[in-house]
Amino acid sequence: MDSKAADGPRRLGVWFVGVKGAVATTAIAGARLIARGLAASTGLVTESAPLEGLDLCALESMHFGGHDIRGISMVDAALEVARENGSIGKDSILSIAGDLREIDQNVRRGTSINCGESICGISDDERGRNEPRTLPDIARAIREDIEGFRTRLGLDGVVVVNLASTEPALLRHPSHASAAGLEDLIAKDQRSAVRASTLYAQVALDLGCPWINFTPSNAGLLPGHVELAKSRGVPLAGNDGKTGETLVKSALAPMFAYRALKVLTWHGYNILGDRDGQVLAHKDNKAAKVATKDGVLEQILGYQPQTHVAIEYARSLADLKTAWDFIHFEGFLGYRMSLQFTWQGCDSILAAPLVIDLVRLAELAKRRGESGLLEHLACFFKQPAAGDSHNLHEQFQALVRYAERLRGGRAAPEI
Amino acid sequence: MDSKAADGPRRLGVWFVGVKGAVATTAIAGARLIARGLAASTGLVTESAPLEGLDLCALESMHFGGHDIRGISMVDAALEVARENGSIGKDSILSIAGDLREIDQNVRRGTSINCGESICGISDDERGRNEPRTLPDIARAIREDIEGFRTRLGLDGVVVVNLASTEPALLRHPSHASAAGLEDLIAKDQRSAVRASTLYAQVALDLGCPWINFTPSNAGLLPGHVELAKSRGVPLAGNDGKTGETLVKSALAPMFAYRALKVLTWHGYNILGDRDGQVLAHKDNKAAKVATKDGVLEQILGYQPQTHVAIEYARSLADLKTAWDFIHFEGFLGYRMSLQFTWQGCDSILAAPLVIDLVRLAELAKRRGESGLLEHLACFFKQPAAGDSHNLHEQFQALVRYAERLRGGRAAPEI
Amino acid sequence: MDSKAADGPRRLGVWFVGVKGAVATTAIAGARLIARGLAASTGLVTESAPLEGLDLCALESMHFGGHDIRGISMVDAALEVARENGSIGKDSILSIAGDLREIDQNVRRGTSINCGESICGISDDERGRNEPRTLPDIARAIREDIEGFRTRLGLDGVVVVNLASTEPALLRHPSHASAAGLEDLIAKDQRSAVRASTLYAQVALDLGCPWINFTPSNAGLLPGHVELAKSRGVPLAGNDGKTGETLVKSALAPMFAYRALKVLTWHGYNILGDRDGQVLAHKDNKAAKVATKDGVLEQILGYQPQTHVAIEYARSLADLKTAWDFIHFEGFLGYRMSLQFTWQGCDSILAAPLVIDLVRLAELAKRRGESGLLEHLACFFKQPAAGDSHNLHEQFQALVRYAERLRGGRAAPEI
Amino acid sequence: MDSKAADGPRRLGVWFVGVKGAVATTAIAGARLIARGLAASTGLVTESAPLEGLDLCALESMHFGGHDIRGISMVDAALEVARENGSIGKDSILSIAGDLREIDQNVRRGTSINCGESICGISDDERGRNEPRTLPDIARAIREDIEGFRTRLGLDGVVVVNLASTEPALLRHPSHASAAGLEDLIAKDQRSAVRASTLYAQVALDLGCPWINFTPSNAGLLPGHVELAKSRGVPLAGNDGKTGETLVKSALAPMFAYRALKVLTWHGYNILGDRDGQVLAHKDNKAAKVATKDGVLEQILGYQPQTHVAIEYARSLADLKTAWDFIHFEGFLGYRMSLQFTWQGCDSILAAPLVIDLVRLAELAKRRGESGLLEHLACFFKQPAAGDSHNLHEQFQALVRYAERLRGGRAAPEI
Repeated sequence: MDSKAADGPRRLGVWFVGVKGAVATTAIAGARLIARGLAASTGLVTESAPLEGLDLCALESMHFGGHDIRGISMVDAALEVARENGSIGKDSILSIAGDLREIDQNVRRGTSINCGESICGISDDERGRNEPRTLPDIARAIREDIEGFRTRLGLDGVVVVNLASTEPALLRHPSHASAAGLEDLIAKDQRSAVRASTLYAQVALDLGCPWINFTPSNAGLLPGHVELAKSRGVPLAGNDGKTGETLVKSALAPMFAYRALKVLTWHGYNILGDRDGQVLAHKDNKAAKVATKDGVLEQILGYQPQTHVAIEYARSLADLKTAWDFIHFEGFLGYRMSLQFTWQGCDSILAAPLVIDLVRLAELAKRRGESGLLEHLACFFKQPAAGDSHNLHEQFQALVRYAERLRGGRAAPEI
Repeated sequence: MDSKAADGPRRLGVWFVGVKGAVATTAIAGARLIARGLAASTGLVTESAPLEGLDLCALESMHFGGHDIRGISMVDAALEVARENGSIGKDSILSIAGDLREIDQNVRRGTSINCGESICGISDDERGRNEPRTLPDIARAIREDIEGFRTRLGLDGVVVVNLASTEPALLRHPSHASAAGLEDLIAKDQRSAVRASTLYAQVALDLGCPWINFTPSNAGLLPGHVELAKSRGVPLAGNDGKTGETLVKSALAPMFAYRALKVLTWHGYNILGDRDGQVLAHKDNKAAKVATKDGVLEQILGYQPQTHVAIEYARSLADLKTAWDFIHFEGFLGYRMSLQFTWQGCDSILAAPLVIDLVRLAELAKRRGESGLLEHLACFFKQPAAGDSHNLHEQFQALVRYAERLRGGRAAPEI
Repeated sequence: MDSKAADGPRRLGVWFVGVKGAVATTAIAGARLIARGLAASTGLVTESAPLEGLDLCALESMHFGGHDIRGISMVDAALEVARENGSIGKDSILSIAGDLREIDQNVRRGTSINCGESICGISDDERGRNEPRTLPDIARAIREDIEGFRTRLGLDGVVVVNLASTEPALLRHPSHASAAGLEDLIAKDQRSAVRASTLYAQVALDLGCPWINFTPSNAGLLPGHVELAKSRGVPLAGNDGKTGETLVKSALAPMFAYRALKVLTWHGYNILGDRDGQVLAHKDNKAAKVATKDGVLEQILGYQPQTHVAIEYARSLADLKTAWDFIHFEGFLGYRMSLQFTWQGCDSILAAPLVIDLVRLAELAKRRGESGLLEHLACFFKQPAAGDSHNLHEQFQALVRYAERLRGGRAAPEI
Repeated sequence: MDSKAADGPRRLGVWFVGVKGAVATTAIAGARLIARGLAASTGLVTESAPLEGLDLCALESMHFGGHDIRGISMVDAALEVARENGSIGKDSILSIAGDLREIDQNVRRGTSINCGESICGISDDERGRNEPRTLPDIARAIREDIEGFRTRLGLDGVVVVNLASTEPALLRHPSHASAAGLEDLIAKDQRSAVRASTLYAQVALDLGCPWINFTPSNAGLLPGHVELAKSRGVPLAGNDGKTGETLVKSALAPMFAYRALKVLTWHGYNILGDRDGQVLAHKDNKAAKVATKDGVLEQILGYQPQTHVAIEYARSLADLKTAWDFIHFEGFLGYRMSLQFTWQGCDSILAAPLVIDLVRLAELAKRRGESGLLEHLACFFKQPAAGDSHNLHEQFQALVRYAERLRGGRAAPEI
């Protein structure tokens, strides 16, 4: 779907599934505020020293659109974030209200097919709660929405990012294994083997748009999607943005390994109060999330300590995700000691810059001809689909080496 | 001073300055318990997977001796640790009482010349509190003690480790810059420009014994010592074992850098109750310690956040060092968030295995002909004298690469 | 069942249901160690200033026995506590081994009828796992055990304390409402409406023995038991010893009320690793426990904030119960703030002295002719069966006023 | 200075020393917002159930004025709070901008005579930094300012509250003991024995205005002030509003006493970033503050555990005072356990409602003819000048009993 811009700067389309949510809203508002010189670039890895000198798309050249299942306007969605989370100032939002109103032109009604009742409950219309269309119809609509966006705005390319709420885990089905299998499931309207994210990924990749599965929804990054990406020459990455407790865990756990200290118990207790928290309070959605958070330690430590990950809803916290982790470990001569930490981080504030980073790096990879899973992006994900390490430091080194290779003009050997 | 053993396993002498302290006592008890199969090797980096396959001295072949300014026997020193800290079981100590009694034969009265009143106050005799000898006399006595140890036990070599209490920081003197300058200060009995650790280091290196400055005492690792080490072909390393709050700090701080999050404030509050804590409660000794703890962040982050490091004495904690760190940081769009951790670790339990690791790695380096500061040991120190990173992960990678080179049989290029 | 001792000091029997558990073992060991002058009385409210001058039974005059479903000896049970929890020293236990061996003579096999599989699984014989006897048979055996204890040791009275693991909550049955109803359930062997604790309470009260339900098991303190106690002139008290997180909660929550601060969210996350923790890991048993912990706030604050109480098993902690509580509250002008605390307390060490306190105060009440629920003991319980306040300070004032009345020689008006 | 209003509601003047500071600004803004129905009364003890039915002055009838050493307008002072602390919304301030501008008419330049360089440094004019006037001149000016306020606004009475920054502790001088002595010191211009707060208190009381010393400055509540208050029939109260760490401490410490648990160590580490924090970073001012915080435990526990109170400046926190307290305690059989808490509270948000409460209760006391120190207000202060308990619960009970007496129409016996 990409076309080379004859001249002038590249115009990059960014299509968010879940464009009215706090993460998307914050990413969009942030990109516009920084582009207009009204905010600093704190939190953007792509603006930090280790990634200097890469030929990344400018923030000014990013154009936003997306799907959502709520009808609220972008300005109102942003003001909702300001009011409920306090993470963006009302004045800041009003200063870019014009930009946000333009984006409203590029927002389309999405689907929550087979996403479970807690996600469907978010929708404000009957179609959202009870999708009447067939899978081929939905896929066609998604395709038209994204193509229309590209054409209307004269974009050089579009990156599609999944920022929708966590779906319940999808049971593996043999047809998930190949691009053709997925195509077939859709064609035959086999709704129980497919969720909304499966469709979004399928269409995006088929259109040649890089796909980022920023959620833990396993339906949004299946083996068949990887095959499709490779055949279309498109890069993709996922799963689940690493923004809070797991980020700290993946920075701290290696310390125990380096010192030959034996972790006996690692319990994590997460409380959060936003829409995401409400969805996760539902058993099925929570199970999907816990699974991606809980796999980190065994890989880093080389053994499985006793772990427990709790996620509970606390309305008053809004987006201020609070996590308490307790680590009980054994040292020399079997003596037991402990480390505990409390993390208080605003989820959308932490996630939004990663989304922008991923879009820029995926777009760069696309232009460089990389396709399939991008290993060098593992540091951004709780459950990286590529890359075999959960150690944050090893993951970051992989990104740094990638940047070094590009700056050095040397061919990137892994492509 | 080393001699090649004609045959049979190497016999390694380990000489601790401060051999009756909790760290030395725990290291000795631990080495003996593990050698006798009575304890596991948890906490020993040299027994962990990344260092597998190195030709390290066996724990069974380590023979202990040292200096101290207290007259208590080794068994009683160990029982004191058991009673006050609870970090080693009484039964465990009694099971190696014979070993400890043998070590008593290799313990000599040390010096605390110019170490300040809080250290001298630990001594139980008048000479400890008010050293009557000249510097040349003291140096000669130290030399005879270490040489006697080597000869008496027929050792293939001796590694000397400084485990004495933190001395007040020593003001730099022009003569510190060279081996000859240090020699001259001692010869002229210039007591104000020299502390006990200066003498121990000087004698050890002059005898060809690797020297580990495991304390923050800057007098124990001066430029002149490095020059002397190089000229004698001996390795040395320091300063200040990285065992607790700083260990966590150096594992966590990189996370903020990787995510372009801006640390505004990092305050650390340390409480501890052992003899070390009493000494550190004295203003001068504390200042020396705080300085080594506080330099970590600027190097890792690339800028200096507002920091504060407090160290306070809490008798009831004994050796269970408790630290609370509060980190206030800014993310996307200037939003402020926080991370806090509480570390509860037994200082001697954390330090002792590092001491054993350092002895083994220093002895290996000596045998391999490495001399001067050992860069690959930076991960063990709060203020590494060599190596330019405080990032725990980069430091550990340096150690891993060293091990890989040795295992690969390739010449280590940096030597 | 009591008889006045003609002369000499009173001899008090203390009968523990669950006598081999960590709490009972610690209470017994502690009472003996203190009686022998080998330990201080820290933690005993009945030895503290506010209760001075009451005519309480001496620790020396307490004689212990009880039921259990494990066959281990008292010495071995105590050594198990020493080894797994480290809360009592091995040397201390050996110094009272003779006392403990005498108590073995007064231990009888108990019942875990209808206690659910997780409790029955603790038992080491088939009868424990699958009770073959009828309810009347079991009740008769309990009666004979307690009577035999009293007679054999020539005791002036016996207090019975329930220290068994938390049973699943018992559904209310109409017959629970009266003493006769309970009697009838037992006579008709209606096993589903009765749990082990129902029987123990029934027999104890019928024998005239004060009954303390130190567990959250609701089956052990039913309305019928209160009626029976009043008719027999016996005091009783419960439920669930207030030892840790809830203790702190009931001390802290009033602060918010006093300052008109509005608690929005109070989440508590408890981790523990002892046998009690294993039992509580079972859904049904946990539900019973959470219910007693969760009712505290509404009574103290006058409204129900959003609360969550989690209890999770962490084997490595053994008896060192660790709780993290997070309190989110609103102050002046709607501004939100937070308080969090981490409690690390050894459960049996905290519970054991309360058990001794309750035994002494119940015996005193019995002698004074008090019967039915003892309101002045509310401060000892998570879910006091009498007394309408959860505010620890109000509860403690009630106890202090009781002591003042007794010391003043004035008639206690409420009796 | 009071006069009975012939008819209509009472008009109460509230005169703040330090009227431009965050606490005064927040109290004023809060009173106006609540009076106008724009905010709820959360945090106001005088609006909570236990104090219902008292004949307190309405918030609508409070009129504000005061002294300050900074020239900024009230609106700008409030916007400064909004910007730096985020504790009041900008919109809220703008909605009462008219009220605030009226108050500017009642603000007068104050004095910081002998308050030390860190307080004087806050002033924005030369006179503030280096007071040229004699003590009698300053006293006369203060008197005229307050009298002018009363007359101009036709007030029925004025309550004066000290909200200025903590002064260095004033060394006791024999003349402090009596009203005449203080008068004499002022008359003779003995500037070293008097600080600004001494003068404010002296004038206020002499004018018959109730005086609240909401700061730890000991110069603002001397024995001579109490004598003067009694002779003038005026009530007074102090010292140092109990808003954060000490509030929690005084709620929690009784728990250890109630349970006969022995507190070994209680360390508190406070970090804050507002102007108050800058002043407290100065050694002398900090010493005064630490003294009032540190006396609490001995009174509550009956013995002095090892304590340490640290106060450090962390600019980024602004007014969000963060405290970590670590409590190490001994239980049954000498076993050691710990409790730690982290308090994150906005200082001005916590203090402001207490100031309003104190004003209303002091005015009520004045009307009722109470004079001298008000014992029933102890719960509001870190170091209550009257009342012998630091136990928050006992303090609050004293307030509740006072209210009960008043509601019962019975004469309050202590007056």
